[in-house]
Amino acid sequence: MSNPFRTLSEHACFGGIQRFLEHDSSEIGLPMRLALYLPPQAASGPVPAVLYLAGLTCNEETFAIKAGAQRMAAELGLALIAPDTSPRGAAVEGLPGATASWDFGIGAGFYLDATQAPWSKHWRMESWLMNELLPLTTAQFGIDASRLGIFGHSMGGHGALTLALRHPGRFRSLSAFAPISAPTQCPWGEKAFTGYLGPDRDAWAAHDASALMCSQESAPYPSGILVDQGLADKFLAEQLHPEQFEAACRQVGQALTLRRHEGYDHGYFFIQSFMADHLAHHARVLAG
Amino acid sequence: MSNPFRTLSEHACFGGIQRFLEHDSSEIGLPMRLALYLPPQAASGPVPAVLYLAGLTCNEETFAIKAGAQRMAAELGLALIAPDTSPRGAAVEGLPGATASWDFGIGAGFYLDATQAPWSKHWRMESWLMNELLPLTTAQFGIDASRLGIFGHSMGGHGALTLALRHPGRFRSLSAFAPISAPTQCPWGEKAFTGYLGPDRDAWAAHDASALMCSQESAPYPSGILVDQGLADKFLAEQLHPEQFEAACRQVGQALTLRRHEGYDHGYFFIQSFMADHLAHHARVLAG
Repeated sequence: MSNPFRTLSEHACFGGIQRFLEHDSSEIGLPMRLALYLPPQAASGPVPAVLYLAGLTCNEETFAIKAGAQRMAAELGLALIAPDTSPRGAAVEGLPGATASWDFGIGAGFYLDATQAPWSKHWRMESWLMNELLPLTTAQFGIDASRLGIFGHSMGGHGALTLALRHPGRFRSLSAFAPISAPTQCPWGEKAFTGYLGPDRDAWAAHDASALMCSQESAPYPSGILVDQGLADKFLAEQLHPEQFEAACRQVGQALTLRRHEGYDHGYFFIQSFMADHLAHHARVLAG
Repeated sequence: MSNPFRTLSEHACFGGIQRFLEHDSSEIGLPMRLALYLPPQAASGPVPAVLYLAGLTCNEETFAIKAGAQRMAAELGLALIAPDTSPRGAAVEGLPGATASWDFGIGAGFYLDATQAPWSKHWRMESWLMNELLPLTTAQFGIDASRLGIFGHSMGGHGALTLALRHPGRFRSLSAFAPISAPTQCPWGEKAFTGYLGPDRDAWAAHDASALMCSQESAPYPSGILVDQGLADKFLAEQLHPEQFEAACRQVGQALTLRRHEGYDHGYFFIQSFMADHLAHHARVLAG
């Protein structure tokens, strides 16, 4: 197979390699970017990987620069795949509404396939990640496609929870930082789902982590789900609703460790403080 | 004492607090910014601190966001003080040459007091750091002024080495990442020193780490100096000259651990890879 990725830059980091890559996505119809960290163990055989989905306004650089994850990933032998959060560039900047707000359009893909024009042409984040990015990166870089985990932050926490529930068997381990846990019931979700999925709320539940969990017949992640939430997070009360996901997990018997942290806010200083626990959770499950 | 600092933002981080601060500097004559990390141990008594000086184009946010230092600082009980790299703002943007290049003027203060107009009015980085910033931060935030270390990267490595040698007794521990080690003999240093200090090269040696070390009568840092250098650093051959500092240390009997790392470049993925070793070096000396 010829390499579908163009290397934008690469940097030695904790004995492994941090790369920034681009490829021409058929699903999106545009070039798409990602960050890929390969730990030193990747030099001697396939390694497990964790997919990290970032939040509103972020891009493929945010996690690699701000989360402080490479140190533990190198120790644990985990690859880290961190994609961009939406289509970008001149081809989409002219779409009405694409750049007008920070919580919709560019930088705000919500990790789903839009069904409404004009978004349905390029805003196909779920298909990109599941059908294209994961198969291509695992094949190209010696990653064990049978040992994948997923996590994310805020909008990316929503993405991690929903993709993990919508694609049984693709991910073995799951965690999130301050996820949007019930997007059908918060302003960010209502705005995004109206724009991408249309006004009919019946179509929304399939992309709501709490609704998806309620619809499970048994616990989909028997090894447990880890969620961290800061109590000084200014988005907690209006946008995040972790208690809804907590109730949904309880209803179906899904083990959930939801930790609430006094004083921590919504940003990467919070995320990096608990990153080691998340990577250890994924490594433990993926080693099994 | 009333608090001279305005808090721009603060964030819980690894049990401590990452703050971004501003104060009205008398030495600079303008507002100046810094990042300050206080570890959890600061809540129960004075802690030692390490001053970090960043490189060309950086500001007070760079280290706090990219270096991954807070985790180890929290573990070791070290405060981290990271100032901006030059005066900024409307008052200096109009100076001829202030914004024309990335290696001179704004973002490129070289941690010295300029003697040449127009720079001599505001470009007083050495006096700001030594006479104002360190006294104010140690007094305001419960930092033990008798237990200070200094380190930095590139232009900030030059700053760390030269300030440590120019101010005997102020710092107990010293290290650097890819420092500009002999600025009188490289293009970055020649440009900056000509602009800030004038064309007379006799004035330059007092701000050249290798020349300063050669002029010592005995080893000024008996606990040793730690320097890390990437061998894939594109600035190594022309700008950095660690071998000159190495030779100067040998000449005066100064213990130096200069580690050369295959494959590592000049950026923060390199710095974060070896950050724990630097903080452990400072903590060991500052604990004594």
